[in-house]
Amino acid sequence: MRLSRYFMPTLREAPADAQIVSHQLMLRAGMVRQEAAGIYAWLPLGLRVLKKIEQVVREEMDRAGAIEILMPTIQLADLWKESGRYDDYGDEMLRILDRGQRELLFGPTAEEVVTDIFRSYVKSYKDLPKNLYNIQWKFRDERRPRFGVMRGREFLMKDAYSFDADEAGARKSYNRMFLAYLNVYARLGLKAVPVKADPGPIGGDLSHEFMILADTGESQVFAHRDLVEMGAPGPDIDWDGDLGPEVARRTSLYAASDEMHDAARFEAMPEDKRMTARGIEVGHIFYFGTKYSAPMKALVTGPDGKDTPVQMGSYGVGVSRLVAAIIEASHDANGIIWPAAAAPFGAVVLNLRAGDAAVDAVCEQAYAALTAAGIDPLYDDRDDRPGAKFAAADLVGIPWQLIVGPKGVAEGVVELKNRATGERQTVPLDAALKAITG
Amino acid sequence: MRLSRYFMPTLREAPADAQIVSHQLMLRAGMVRQEAAGIYAWLPLGLRVLKKIEQVVREEMDRAGAIEILMPTIQLADLWKESGRYDDYGDEMLRILDRGQRELLFGPTAEEVVTDIFRSYVKSYKDLPKNLYNIQWKFRDERRPRFGVMRGREFLMKDAYSFDADEAGARKSYNRMFLAYLNVYARLGLKAVPVKADPGPIGGDLSHEFMILADTGESQVFAHRDLVEMGAPGPDIDWDGDLGPEVARRTSLYAASDEMHDAARFEAMPEDKRMTARGIEVGHIFYFGTKYSAPMKALVTGPDGKDTPVQMGSYGVGVSRLVAAIIEASHDANGIIWPAAAAPFGAVVLNLRAGDAAVDAVCEQAYAALTAAGIDPLYDDRDDRPGAKFAAADLVGIPWQLIVGPKGVAEGVVELKNRATGERQTVPLDAALKAITG
Repeated sequence: MRLSRYFMPTLREAPADAQIVSHQLMLRAGMVRQEAAGIYAWLPLGLRVLKKIEQVVREEMDRAGAIEILMPTIQLADLWKESGRYDDYGDEMLRILDRGQRELLFGPTAEEVVTDIFRSYVKSYKDLPKNLYNIQWKFRDERRPRFGVMRGREFLMKDAYSFDADEAGARKSYNRMFLAYLNVYARLGLKAVPVKADPGPIGGDLSHEFMILADTGESQVFAHRDLVEMGAPGPDIDWDGDLGPEVARRTSLYAASDEMHDAARFEAMPEDKRMTARGIEVGHIFYFGTKYSAPMKALVTGPDGKDTPVQMGSYGVGVSRLVAAIIEASHDANGIIWPAAAAPFGAVVLNLRAGDAAVDAVCEQAYAALTAAGIDPLYDDRDDRPGAKFAAADLVGIPWQLIVGPKGVAEGVVELKNRATGERQTVPLDAALKAITG
Repeated sequence: MRLSRYFMPTLREAPADAQIVSHQLMLRAGMVRQEAAGIYAWLPLGLRVLKKIEQVVREEMDRAGAIEILMPTIQLADLWKESGRYDDYGDEMLRILDRGQRELLFGPTAEEVVTDIFRSYVKSYKDLPKNLYNIQWKFRDERRPRFGVMRGREFLMKDAYSFDADEAGARKSYNRMFLAYLNVYARLGLKAVPVKADPGPIGGDLSHEFMILADTGESQVFAHRDLVEMGAPGPDIDWDGDLGPEVARRTSLYAASDEMHDAARFEAMPEDKRMTARGIEVGHIFYFGTKYSAPMKALVTGPDGKDTPVQMGSYGVGVSRLVAAIIEASHDANGIIWPAAAAPFGAVVLNLRAGDAAVDAVCEQAYAALTAAGIDPLYDDRDDRPGAKFAAADLVGIPWQLIVGPKGVAEGVVELKNRATGERQTVPLDAALKAITG
């Protein structure tokens, strides 16, 4: 993409009401624009990042055997009356009357809709397990939307729902999601810690939140250091096999956020294993049994011929929230530092003297080579000061900066800067391209 | 994808209230499920098609220089009061009050939002032209939603908005979209005819609808046969060059739908050039000048230092509607016939005796080979009658059926069926794979 033709309205200063660094940087980098309280338009750069993250989430869901569907944003109130949640949900639900005075709502979540879909088609244990997910815009009418897309009202969520014949099956489905979530965060360059979450009135041990560690996090996380340092399971585990031991290895070590913290258990660990850090919640997985299937009569016939309510769990990732969370975890004084998997462009070519035939030619050559290699480069071909270009490139956080100026071109070299490390090297163009394309 | 693990709830019969063939087939093929009047959930097969079409539209927009953003579904009423449309829009607009009693709405279109985005950042003619598009769910509260996703209330639309310094620039932007639209439809295997549309109170000649030809279409189309037979311009035209002659070649020949039909002009054409057919509207492009930029004060400074309202056009494609339109244009008595670019899977492997070791082995080999070749195959590995498998494969309309049965396996052959032509050939597996992968 040529920046002269793009739409990347960077700002010198963030508006004063942007309180946290991710919000400030997203506004300054021209990633989003606030349209109303807690409602954002995604400008081109922000949308690219959002789509990258969405795709990582999608791939890891698919790998773990979940199947993508797409539920509408607008739902019927009737379904929520069936589950009993219509009145309970309160003011956070955006309630709507259509022209025929029918009660609708903008879905804050989709347990009711997916349970309705399930019961319409699936009748037998033979068709289980199933895990249906969707990545769709949700709306929660927060009293105090704030922190940009971190706590917006209209937000993009991946929500998956598992259906099993019995609790043992449900636990397997839960384990698959538990490990798939760790892979999502690892691919996005994040350190994620699964902490026990309040299971609510159902009880049991199958409820976890995933906290990513960032100094600016909203919660305090207490965890065994080995758990934090443990790598993600990776894509090659046997998703059909027994994942219990792998999950147990990660849930037996202490980890809790402030809400569920057990100071005595934490203090009992060796001092060098005790780790406290700030965290941001970026996922929640939850087994809730027959909470919706019983009242909504989503029944499956078992091998014994008897009908019982299907066992369900739900699994949420805040996709738009992850954009902000990554920035909280990965930035410096000059701007954002994108991990490769979330970067809006793989590299940026900086033309330090646009209009100079020799410099233009090298830039065009670099741009074409990077495009051909699938790097999806940005090309800063604007007629602007080098200082402004350096600042913009650092601000928007593209992993590689390939800097082309007249002096270097005369000497047959370019400068290559790694945004994360700050390392610079002056090398021939071929070497720079090779470093970028790996 | 193994069908035994997938979620493709095909139905033997369509519900009686499905009046048109695309609605019937989408329900029977398990592509969508109605959640409320005019509101649909997209089941896995339907979502795959929707995403394929969305991606074709995206690629052609990008090629023509438009830049993708994403506007929220929920908009502020205030912007619509600024443009003067809030009261005019009537009952089709889904109006919403949030918990603070602020007036919101579910966007039926986005001229106001995009104009507001534009005026916030762009101030000079030097930053023009710009064309910003988004692919987002819209809501129009139709009095009588019907025909499935063909006329739903919640629907997926690609809407692009061009911004130019003057009318000559706006015409260039219009021409780019005019030709890009033809490329979209051609890639989707559709015959599309651009017909003049009512330009409304602004007048002028820059308003076209795109009708795709299908016997079941809602409108009558009258056109010069040469226009209908004229191929799309293709991707390799010079998008920065003068597209006027290419557009003129296509707008000088007569074409109109019933609303704008001029019988005298039509009758004046040679009889063998007069063509009438049924058509479905699948796109609308429209130059509207300063209709929004003037009241909303979206001004740009010209080379003369004077501020004038920016010249705008809008360009819509009904992405979810296209799913149905393609089916209307491409089906037979047995089901859907997907063009390759919209097909949910590239091929389906039919195992006619699941559980037979030799047949299973050939199927697995075929499935692996097609997967490796990027064909994204479906594998019907269910324990079911061959007749049921043939019927399902025809119904869901995947372009190639690779049929593996015990008799063929014993003889070292498989059967390959082309869904569109019905042609079958009995060949060794390698030859079948080669035919599919091209």
